[in-house]
Amino acid sequence: MIGIFDSGVGGMTVARAIEQLCPDLPLVYFGDIARTPYGSKSPETLVRYAQNNVDFLLAQGARLIVIACNSAASTATDALQQYCTVPVLDVITPAVVKAAEVSKTGRIGVIGTRATVRSRIYSERITALRPEARVFSAACPLLVPLVEEGWLNRRETKMILRRYLHPLRRQQVDTLVLGCTHYPLLKQLIGPRIGSRVKLIDSSVVMAGQVRDFLVAHPDLRKRLQNTTVTENRFYVSDCTDIVEETAARIFGRPIKLQTVEL
Amino acid sequence: MIGIFDSGVGGMTVARAIEQLCPDLPLVYFGDIARTPYGSKSPETLVRYAQNNVDFLLAQGARLIVIACNSAASTATDALQQYCTVPVLDVITPAVVKAAEVSKTGRIGVIGTRATVRSRIYSERITALRPEARVFSAACPLLVPLVEEGWLNRRETKMILRRYLHPLRRQQVDTLVLGCTHYPLLKQLIGPRIGSRVKLIDSSVVMAGQVRDFLVAHPDLRKRLQNTTVTENRFYVSDCTDIVEETAARIFGRPIKLQTVEL
Repeated sequence: MIGIFDSGVGGMTVARAIEQLCPDLPLVYFGDIARTPYGSKSPETLVRYAQNNVDFLLAQGARLIVIACNSAASTATDALQQYCTVPVLDVITPAVVKAAEVSKTGRIGVIGTRATVRSRIYSERITALRPEARVFSAACPLLVPLVEEGWLNRRETKMILRRYLHPLRRQQVDTLVLGCTHYPLLKQLIGPRIGSRVKLIDSSVVMAGQVRDFLVAHPDLRKRLQNTTVTENRFYVSDCTDIVEETAARIFGRPIKLQTVEL
Repeated sequence: MIGIFDSGVGGMTVARAIEQLCPDLPLVYFGDIARTPYGSKSPETLVRYAQNNVDFLLAQGARLIVIACNSAASTATDALQQYCTVPVLDVITPAVVKAAEVSKTGRIGVIGTRATVRSRIYSERITALRPEARVFSAACPLLVPLVEEGWLNRRETKMILRRYLHPLRRQQVDTLVLGCTHYPLLKQLIGPRIGSRVKLIDSSVVMAGQVRDFLVAHPDLRKRLQNTTVTENRFYVSDCTDIVEETAARIFGRPIKLQTVEL
């Protein structure tokens, strides 16, 4: 099975994209709702939570780990790669590669949580691939609560987005990385506010592409992932409320059975 | 010592009010930043977290527990009173008594997190005291993140407040309970939007009054609280970031030394 974890429901956009691209591979998802949000927590705490989450996924039979949370990926990927004996893929790498590839002017914007922006991981890794690139980042801490409230088309959400995106727009970026798995749900509002010519990199979609490519390159692992008696994708959360169920259903376009576990 | 806990920094408004009213009594504060926010979590999870927090405060020498978090108080007060051998006071009771007392028309509004409003605790307890009262509640889940971002005077915050308060204003409440310890920081914005004649009940202030009254009624306990070698108030958090330190300093009007502990 492919094991995917996130701080909450946002990573389900990644699970959904992987499900669509690799429909024959069973998934196990863990959303750490009880300890969400990760974006405002310290690096030490994030590493500890990420290790708890991986322990759980490995115990469920995961043989490949996907860190679907940008805040965790920006802070805990190295620690997890040392901690685990199975491969660990993170949601940041494919978005970095894609952004470096598609930008024409090399002026690249990144939006994310406070933890992701503070880590400077996107700017460091994009400029490692394209040294002449200039990366402009903006922390957008209110977007996660707005998405979790379902305020996807409210005037207030549009105003807050305009305020957050304004500095990136002034920098005339030609590419914008949606560096948080909640943000694809706001794609329709982000597009017109950053400018219709700006290419949006949806980390969920590029992550699914990376999983597919990684398994093409590692056919043995692909076989091990398929070698399970589990036929249905499984979704676990560390806490559950009505809003969580609604958001999961909105992302998948179908009701999702969420099982609550205590880590 | 008086032990105070909250889901994060909001409860520091309670600690500050108690410090001002009972300056001779040492306090120990615990803010569960690593697991904040409580307002979106399930009742089972909240009870478990509240018990962890109380265990920590008792181990620090607390002989009186103050639940400064409305979400925890609405859900876990009964469980904690059975769990503890020391008295447990909650932030809801004094606000209920005050609202029932000061309202002239009996039309009372309550704003709080989703967990607090879902619990229906304010409406049940206000109508238990004043059966003819009508209580109108509104969940305001975005206010906590807005306060934690320091967006205390932004246009977006005002618009969101107007949207949240509009139904209560239409019901012509004459009293509004600020049923979350973050909300006193928004008092200046709430007043004009709910109407200048509406009395605002600040749960931090009434909570401090209740602690003082409880200790007047229990002088032995008051002596036990004073009987400690600790001279400075202590502030613990389960995680710490710059924003947390800034918010604490804003509430107390002085820098606060925060010690990080892992529960």
